[in-house]
Amino acid sequence: MTAYPSVNPDLDLVLERTVDVAPELVWRAWTTPELVVRWFAPKPWSTSSCEIDLQPGGRFHTVMRSPEGTEYPSTGCILVVEEGRTLVFTSGLGPGFRPQVGTDGDFPFTAVIRIERSGNGTKYTATAIHADASAKQSHEKMGFVEGWGTALDQLVETVRGL
Amino acid sequence: MTAYPSVNPDLDLVLERTVDVAPELVWRAWTTPELVVRWFAPKPWSTSSCEIDLQPGGRFHTVMRSPEGTEYPSTGCILVVEEGRTLVFTSGLGPGFRPQVGTDGDFPFTAVIRIERSGNGTKYTATAIHADASAKQSHEKMGFVEGWGTALDQLVETVRGL
Repeated sequence: MTAYPSVNPDLDLVLERTVDVAPELVWRAWTTPELVVRWFAPKPWSTSSCEIDLQPGGRFHTVMRSPEGTEYPSTGCILVVEEGRTLVFTSGLGPGFRPQVGTDGDFPFTAVIRIERSGNGTKYTATAIHADASAKQSHEKMGFVEGWGTALDQLVETVRGL
Repeated sequence: MTAYPSVNPDLDLVLERTVDVAPELVWRAWTTPELVVRWFAPKPWSTSSCEIDLQPGGRFHTVMRSPEGTEYPSTGCILVVEEGRTLVFTSGLGPGFRPQVGTDGDFPFTAVIRIERSGNGTKYTATAIHADASAKQSHEKMGFVEGWGTALDQLVETVRGL
């Protein structure tokens, strides 16, 4: 049993779409570092590295690279792994559930990725859970919905080629 | 599988003791709100209420009351429940894995409670995991080892009476 976060529209952002690739492939794309680097950052950004220790407490690490070549590393903690269905990770804790030292202007969030079969495709729901409305608004202004939507398009393209 | 935090002596505090009550009783004492209120706060402090939703993402809530009657509520998130053996919760996230808004002077920590059979008793290890050395030192100065040690004495007394 897991107490899933209940979505609060004042605090949380949701991207929900149905895509025409199988849920097994969406799960693989999210949990295989060699695949994550191919789709995770919306172009023209890229993902220069990824490490995933796929278990609660495990490390979820990505480095995104801007078009100018600046790298933005991010290390979070995996919280829930329900094979093929649900992945939850947070930037609010580091690997091994260690609280993280915050940086100015930074806001932690927890991502809940739900993958459900829908016909021959997948109902995909990505939810970003924030501490307060201001963090949600910052994330929204950064272009969460567009960015994660483009990344999902790239994910679909990536797994179609497998 | 769970990636347990590895203890870093610069960042973490550990209370390890063997007590002469069965591990099942120690687990019950930690996971039953009606028992938690009887031992959790070292006297002359007391625990005026406790709520536990015993699953990953679930709420771990206590209200400690000072001898003067001031109440200190604390709400964290349960991360790992390994029946009878391991309980992990954190004040770094709220229920449903929601990042928490920090308050000045406050430091989040993750608590790992390990319960192992040792003869007829229990080897009890409580680890507090912090983001940085300054949080560890603050927690140490607040009397973590003495406080959690006294609470453990109270836990033992509580379950002996069951």
